Amino acid sequence: MSNIDNNLVLVLIDAIEHNKFAEALTAVKGLPSVDLADILEQLDPTLGWRLLECLPDRADVFSYFEPEQQVRMAREFPRATLAQLVSEMPADERTDLFKRFDQNQRDILLPALAHAEREDIRRLSAYVEGTAGALMTSDYATLQKEMTVAQAMAYLRDEAPDAETIYQAYVIDDKRRLLGTVSLRDLILADLHKTIEDLMISDVVSADVIDDQEDIAKKIARYDLLALPILDQYRVLVGIVTYDDAMDVASEEVTEDIHKSAGVSTIIGSLKDASIGLLYRKRIFWLVLLVFGNLFSGAGIAHYEDIIAANIVLVFFLPLLVDSGGNAGSQSATLMVRALATGEVVMRDWLQLIGREALVALALGCTMAAAVSILGYIRGDETVALVLALSMVSIVMIGCMIGMSLPFVLSKFNFDPASASAPLITSVCDATGVVIYLFIASKLLEDVALAAV
Amino acid sequence: MSNIDNNLVLVLIDAIEHNKFAEALTAVKGLPSVDLADILEQLDPTLGWRLLECLPDRADVFSYFEPEQQVRMAREFPRATLAQLVSEMPADERTDLFKRFDQNQRDILLPALAHAEREDIRRLSAYVEGTAGALMTSDYATLQKEMTVAQAMAYLRDEAPDAETIYQAYVIDDKRRLLGTVSLRDLILADLHKTIEDLMISDVVSADVIDDQEDIAKKIARYDLLALPILDQYRVLVGIVTYDDAMDVASEEVTEDIHKSAGVSTIIGSLKDASIGLLYRKRIFWLVLLVFGNLFSGAGIAHYEDIIAANIVLVFFLPLLVDSGGNAGSQSATLMVRALATGEVVMRDWLQLIGREALVALALGCTMAAAVSILGYIRGDETVALVLALSMVSIVMIGCMIGMSLPFVLSKFNFDPASASAPLITSVCDATGVVIYLFIASKLLEDVALAAV
Repeated sequence: MSNIDNNLVLVLIDAIEHNKFAEALTAVKGLPSVDLADILEQLDPTLGWRLLECLPDRADVFSYFEPEQQVRMAREFPRATLAQLVSEMPADERTDLFKRFDQNQRDILLPALAHAEREDIRRLSAYVEGTAGALMTSDYATLQKEMTVAQAMAYLRDEAPDAETIYQAYVIDDKRRLLGTVSLRDLILADLHKTIEDLMISDVVSADVIDDQEDIAKKIARYDLLALPILDQYRVLVGIVTYDDAMDVASEEVTEDIHKSAGVSTIIGSLKDASIGLLYRKRIFWLVLLVFGNLFSGAGIAHYEDIIAANIVLVFFLPLLVDSGGNAGSQSATLMVRALATGEVVMRDWLQLIGREALVALALGCTMAAAVSILGYIRGDETVALVLALSMVSIVMIGCMIGMSLPFVLSKFNFDPASASAPLITSVCDATGVVIYLFIASKLLEDVALAAV
Repeated sequence: MSNIDNNLVLVLIDAIEHNKFAEALTAVKGLPSVDLADILEQLDPTLGWRLLECLPDRADVFSYFEPEQQVRMAREFPRATLAQLVSEMPADERTDLFKRFDQNQRDILLPALAHAEREDIRRLSAYVEGTAGALMTSDYATLQKEMTVAQAMAYLRDEAPDAETIYQAYVIDDKRRLLGTVSLRDLILADLHKTIEDLMISDVVSADVIDDQEDIAKKIARYDLLALPILDQYRVLVGIVTYDDAMDVASEEVTEDIHKSAGVSTIIGSLKDASIGLLYRKRIFWLVLLVFGNLFSGAGIAHYEDIIAANIVLVFFLPLLVDSGGNAGSQSATLMVRALATGEVVMRDWLQLIGREALVALALGCTMAAAVSILGYIRGDETVALVLALSMVSIVMIGCMIGMSLPFVLSKFNFDPASASAPLITSVCDATGVVIYLFIASKLLEDVALAAV
């Protein structure tokens, strides 16, 4: 997505190297922070840092750097500069950065921060990664229900929270329990003398601080929220999660599901920066497991060694038949895993779906059987064609049933349905496919042999 | 995600059946529109419709129905009611509904609408599906640069646009060309006598009306926007796309990519409602294509028929070896397709990545070779073990190279990299795997045979 103007980068390098910072600032004026961050990441770190230092919204730009880059740069900063930058960052980003620091960096940073920020970092970093608590920010505006609209507006003007968070204010009682929410839209449309209590919506969609981040993202998407208030077990407001962070989480979760679909355990961070060792570890587990899984196919073949030896033409069609079961099964599993992930389909739909799937599989199997039996007739005879056609229909139908059911079964036993990966389905379908094919072959070809006798 | 209270549904049915609408309204008071829509979809259509009719924000609830449900219900409405409901809907949702109507329904609806709405529907429905134009809405607020802050605020209060769109207003000239943008936050913080021109940001991130909807969604996510202004070729503001619609598009695009990863052409709409015929058509293409693709594996086997007949133990390991190449290759392809989709990786990274992939593949191949050669030694002898080890390393390395390169190659020739599906990679890797395995076997086993002579 980034479309960096290389000319601009050259102009910047020249300006900074000659200490013409005013010129550099003019060149980047009006650029969105995320674009600026991309450009700065391309510069030599010391040059980038010198430009960053004089940017008006440097904390915002810094927030857009890759996490590793943030840690690397932070190591180079003088303590006072780092502390200032960190205190300007949004509370959630600041906490994420802090969590990535080693103990040494933390010990340097903490004493340089103001007390409130120090406590905020400590509090936010205590939540378990992957929960609402670890995702939320403490940058939000709260109102009291007794305030008038005029007072509330004056208060919001004074606090001037971020654009992200000013549009929805939360009404709390003296114990910080959530009573309701008021949008800035409702505030500016309302009579100035009304109270917040008159105006607020009391049925607030909220989430629990220990909820899974995936559920948070789904809730924000479902209710089209700008931010979701997060409560602890006493219904005390402890933070909010904003929609842009929810979008990032949704994207990460999708990446995780897609990787799982190919039998890759989750990779943390960018693929481009992943080390060889990390990639190896995340991939080897399923690969080796499937090697052993494929032994069942081998055992199936070994069991029918005689019939293969007597009819070597069967081997010619072996990959084609077993792969077809795996392919059809992977389709079923993939459709089902995605539908479960988006919530389109729930557990109780299983029976209805399996019935329809059986009919789809029958239609798919018959079409593929027609294709393969022609090939079988050309290369073998009508008996081979019949063996192939019967095998194909059975293999495709069983493959689809396995592919469709496995995600449900995994889900039922509280495993991630996304673990029903294409390689796993393929291995299972291979083994059943081998047995079905060679069983049918042994029956029909024996019959023919007997008939010939 | 939906957690519908079944008790509530029963209470509602009872209340509506006895015409106690006030009671029904009290029962659903405070429920978010999306939840209400879920409940109404569960009710008998006539009951649902009677409750919908008396809801204060019925257009909003109606917008959350599944598209098919909207069309079905609309068919039951009296013309005047339908026209009123449609005119209350957001402009983009209204246009989507209209596009799903048949000519007869359109002819009934159009004359009942006000002139401005009719023209708006005509204009919006003219854009090609999948572009920014088809996604945008005409519900947004515009300001003139000469206005003072006080005037602008008064204007916004009068217009009272949706919560979604009031937070960002667009500044246009007399030809409706986009000059800048002002957030409600900046407005309420600003001195009332300042002009919009003083306040507005002129470097607006915008998009073209013919841009692909996927690019629109990425832009909104990248710049954390609430809405993205859409311009025509003369830089005239023709609409905006809001972040919630962008999130929906992003989710659809992900579903499309995931389906493609298993060789399923895109399915329009919900999996649950998809017909058998639709599912068949979307799945059969790749399945039959891959049947023919697998002929190459068969041909490879046929070529080495003699060596197989002489060493039937080779067949035992055939599925295991060829699947391993496919599995490793699918992992590579999946990692790459996702990284290309998120923009983490771009074309110019290819050379760097292929080098690292070769090393990862070598490590993976060696581990899997160790596993398989032990099995080979147990079932065969040391020569079989050697054949298996050498084959495994070669097959896995070649599989990974194919898996990693195919998405880039497809992308280079302007195909969707997501077409590098697991089944396709598996078929390609199967064919190469068969040839590699049997070639190595023929060389080594012949040598042994000669040595024995």
